[in-house]
Amino acid sequence: MIEDDGRLPFEHPLGAIPLRTRGQIPRQGGESDRQFEVQFRVWAPGADEVVVRLLTGEAAGDHPTVDAGMSVRTATVAGAAAGDDYVYVLDGRALPDPASRHQPEGVRGPSRIVDPDAFAWTDAGFAIRPLAEHVLYELHIGTFSPEGTFDGAIPFLAELADLGVTAIEIMPVAEFPGRWGWGYDGVYLGAAHSHYGGPEGLARLVDAAHSHGLAVILDVVHNHLGATGAEQVAAFGPYFTEKYTTGWGAALNYDDAWSDPVREWVLQSVEWYLRDLHVDGLRLDAVHAIFDQGAEHLVAAVARRARAAWATRMLAGPLASPPPDGVGPLIIAESALNDPEVIRPTALGGWGCDAQWADDLHHAVRVLLTGERDGYYRDFGTVADLATALHRPYVHTGGWSPARERRFGAPADDRPPEQFVAFTQDHDQVGNRALGDRLPRTVQPLAALIVLTSPFTPMLFMGEEHGEPAPFQFFSDHIDPGIAEATRQGRRREFADFAAFSGEEVPDPQDPETFRRSQLSREVHEDIAALYRRLLGLRRELPPGDIDEIAYDEASRWLRFRRGPFHVVASFAEAPATVPLPAHVTEVLVSTHHTFAVKDGAIALPPLGGALLRGKGGPG
Amino acid sequence: MIEDDGRLPFEHPLGAIPLRTRGQIPRQGGESDRQFEVQFRVWAPGADEVVVRLLTGEAAGDHPTVDAGMSVRTATVAGAAAGDDYVYVLDGRALPDPASRHQPEGVRGPSRIVDPDAFAWTDAGFAIRPLAEHVLYELHIGTFSPEGTFDGAIPFLAELADLGVTAIEIMPVAEFPGRWGWGYDGVYLGAAHSHYGGPEGLARLVDAAHSHGLAVILDVVHNHLGATGAEQVAAFGPYFTEKYTTGWGAALNYDDAWSDPVREWVLQSVEWYLRDLHVDGLRLDAVHAIFDQGAEHLVAAVARRARAAWATRMLAGPLASPPPDGVGPLIIAESALNDPEVIRPTALGGWGCDAQWADDLHHAVRVLLTGERDGYYRDFGTVADLATALHRPYVHTGGWSPARERRFGAPADDRPPEQFVAFTQDHDQVGNRALGDRLPRTVQPLAALIVLTSPFTPMLFMGEEHGEPAPFQFFSDHIDPGIAEATRQGRRREFADFAAFSGEEVPDPQDPETFRRSQLSREVHEDIAALYRRLLGLRRELPPGDIDEIAYDEASRWLRFRRGPFHVVASFAEAPATVPLPAHVTEVLVSTHHTFAVKDGAIALPPLGGALLRGKGGPG
Repeated sequence: MIEDDGRLPFEHPLGAIPLRTRGQIPRQGGESDRQFEVQFRVWAPGADEVVVRLLTGEAAGDHPTVDAGMSVRTATVAGAAAGDDYVYVLDGRALPDPASRHQPEGVRGPSRIVDPDAFAWTDAGFAIRPLAEHVLYELHIGTFSPEGTFDGAIPFLAELADLGVTAIEIMPVAEFPGRWGWGYDGVYLGAAHSHYGGPEGLARLVDAAHSHGLAVILDVVHNHLGATGAEQVAAFGPYFTEKYTTGWGAALNYDDAWSDPVREWVLQSVEWYLRDLHVDGLRLDAVHAIFDQGAEHLVAAVARRARAAWATRMLAGPLASPPPDGVGPLIIAESALNDPEVIRPTALGGWGCDAQWADDLHHAVRVLLTGERDGYYRDFGTVADLATALHRPYVHTGGWSPARERRFGAPADDRPPEQFVAFTQDHDQVGNRALGDRLPRTVQPLAALIVLTSPFTPMLFMGEEHGEPAPFQFFSDHIDPGIAEATRQGRRREFADFAAFSGEEVPDPQDPETFRRSQLSREVHEDIAALYRRLLGLRRELPPGDIDEIAYDEASRWLRFRRGPFHVVASFAEAPATVPLPAHVTEVLVSTHHTFAVKDGAIALPPLGGALLRGKGGPG
Repeated sequence: MIEDDGRLPFEHPLGAIPLRTRGQIPRQGGESDRQFEVQFRVWAPGADEVVVRLLTGEAAGDHPTVDAGMSVRTATVAGAAAGDDYVYVLDGRALPDPASRHQPEGVRGPSRIVDPDAFAWTDAGFAIRPLAEHVLYELHIGTFSPEGTFDGAIPFLAELADLGVTAIEIMPVAEFPGRWGWGYDGVYLGAAHSHYGGPEGLARLVDAAHSHGLAVILDVVHNHLGATGAEQVAAFGPYFTEKYTTGWGAALNYDDAWSDPVREWVLQSVEWYLRDLHVDGLRLDAVHAIFDQGAEHLVAAVARRARAAWATRMLAGPLASPPPDGVGPLIIAESALNDPEVIRPTALGGWGCDAQWADDLHHAVRVLLTGERDGYYRDFGTVADLATALHRPYVHTGGWSPARERRFGAPADDRPPEQFVAFTQDHDQVGNRALGDRLPRTVQPLAALIVLTSPFTPMLFMGEEHGEPAPFQFFSDHIDPGIAEATRQGRRREFADFAAFSGEEVPDPQDPETFRRSQLSREVHEDIAALYRRLLGLRRELPPGDIDEIAYDEASRWLRFRRGPFHVVASFAEAPATVPLPAHVTEVLVSTHHTFAVKDGAIALPPLGGALLRGKGGPG
């Protein structure tokens, strides 16, 4: 059953592939596609009889499949074309295609045939930057624009590029239940959310981003499937395993019997985004919940296949010259492992991700600024923790973590600092608060100063750059009443203590107002906007690589670090404070507050104040 | 709660430690120990009140514990001494010490205080060999000698050393339920089985082995605990996790909250064997069932701590010179992962084991010799598989495994061949057959020829070297009637097809006769004994490292390989066969049968025959 090229039956493209659009004969475009044919390929060990049912178009009706080996069924249907809707009928039960590229009527509706070559790309001139030059920007399509769509986001791209952002990182778009939601309960991995505008909408957004020089990184969830619809996928075969458990549902089967078709299903969705939708990178959600004992961890396979798909696109395009060495798609992990294995090259036994989120840095900064000590924040609280995190963001490198009740992490000194994505706001640290409130404006300037002058790859959360007042709350639009109620109750339970203590009501995730409340108001706080603009501008002048020197005083609660001729000072004291400076450092380039004074080899700062200074002459 | 030396409370020695035996004051020996004191230290978050109850000796009675932090309770009891029996009383329930070093009355009985310095070692002159020089010998204490004890094994060591064995590998000895059993259901990891002779018996055996130049490797089970007694351990704290599942019971908690004390409990048992009982290495049972997402996998931690404990012993001993670089304890994994990560150094992202068992080589040989194709044997059957396995024993390096129904493994070309332990019999491949029958004598010579001339580290299973006729069946002596019956029924179910097909009855594991039937008869088959002796002698002349050339003919079913001037030929044909030889290769050093003939640049071999030859002049 192994084909001549070494591929197994399920390693050929899964899904509905318009056969005549890959160059076999000259493309006719438009209606003439209807003369062509579509190859369907599905892995379905869970069914005895598998039928392709076209719901629309010339070939509407049922089409039998043939056995291609290893429970793969195929059918080549003449007259079917891109735009037609279809389902697979498994022993009489009609279901969407697990490898669907479009679910125009949502997770319960049919799949739609998509022509990967139909989009008229204009991005031949776009080239992604090397990792160290990036400034990322996390956004949620549903709340980023008034329209809440891919197209709605396009008008705002120019100003992001102008601000110095180099890549937008889009929260998950895989078809999830309902009209809105964060997207982490997606089911059809390769189907860009219908309410956002589907695959064509995503293509338009990517093309527009590229026209502004912005790369596009997609947040993808490979650690579980959303509860609504997971069963529809599982009807096809053993997509899940009981060997492991995750906090969000059954673990996907990545290493047990018949795991290869499941892996392939994930990997082909990755290829789809990188090769066909011109996405430039992935943010891999919660890799610590992707369990895989196999010789190549799924995350490593995702990184490898994503790079190959990206290279395929580059080689097919009209690039004047191939991309320089070391430039490629960005594979960024969310990892709660504090294990540099995630971002080490495979030759050193790593998973080969380019970068990972630096949650510990966020926590170290936040706790100093706000004094919060709940949950995992209890592991942080000293200026020394921040100094540690500014070297490498793992504050725990094998030491005891009270919040985790275990020794945790390993040193990451062998990894360069740009492999860590630093932020003071993200969807989790804002949205997973009871009220979804952002970092308070009073402390935002100092947080921004630290993160944007750090040696890491910075990331903004949509709106923070203008001091956005709207919260980012937890909202959903579950179509299954049981899951809707469970989500509502779960949220209420999670924040019961908060509600009891504060007297505030935790927003109902299913209330449409919770979603609407979370849409960006785009109300600009001028001081904050100016600060971000100035910091992002100066950031480009900072030398690359590690911090050169770092000093701090725990008792006085200040910290100072140097990058080349630039010095950053930060005071976490509750009272005005004076922070010593090297003698020649007198020029203040940026300050978090209007009130500061450099005098006698020191800078006087207000509470939670800081500044970026430049020394005159000499490196230090 | 972190102490000055960075250790957490549970990172100090757990168990019952005779305080005055570590050199604080000069040892008095014997009865005068009774004037001394014993420090008890136990991690017991599962109890509010923890009492040390001495059952014997001068300090008999209850002794309160004090809180040492992190749920660790300690008591220093004057008058207690090695040889006294004790239990911990947890909220009124008396239980053995999880860190017990001796369970003289079995898993349900009290623990006994052991003085680690009491044994009079005579092995100062012993030095372990480098990995590539080893010939291992797996034995089961209960069936190796008529007595079935550590002491009982001693008289047979001299002849093993004489034969060329360099290390005995002892099947698990951690206290398990009943008088006999394979030992993979141990509970008290650090307590050498009472019916084998306890820790003193093991010390006597190790000392005797060392006197014959034999190293001692201990099989240890860290992937689960035996069902009888696991609950006794779990009463102390969260020893188990529901995050993962194993085929043999709950997974041990190696990476969740409060996993560190569990890890420490395992690691201190390892140190005990390596440092105090002078064991020279470990065989780690089924590392694929040891689940650990932490930054240092438990297996890597075991290897690291075992090496440190071994070094402590070496440095404490009267060695004339330190051991040469690259010499240390042998950490050998049983791994069903086909992933070289297990045996890569930690600097390359590996777990740092020295070697792993080469099951695939066994299967490749066995299936050629016997034609068996049941279960995982179905993945094997060609001479090409054996050629692959003789290069590196992973026959699957990413290809499809029909038995596993997945792609499996990764290439191990970067690992030297001595990192693989090769065998044609082991406790699993014999004992986990319905009748526990050994490799048939008719095919044993060819199997031995291949394995003992391979570039891997060879291992014999007790008795195979003399053609032992006794089977090695699955036997147990469960003391819990429910578990006894479940074991009996499980075995019957596993081999129901076999019983129906063959009409043979599957032995009852709980029948004492099943155990007795498995004891070595020591009936010697002269031809086989002579063959092993000759092959082990000649093996020392083989050049180290990889096979130089390999050739085979699938249709004619022969295989030939060269190591320096030595040539090995094997015919797997059912009829007499002629295998071509290089012209100058005419001298037959060993043959599996008396009937063979070298003529006209070829060797005529009987069915399943083979030979070791030497070429005259030239390397090839």
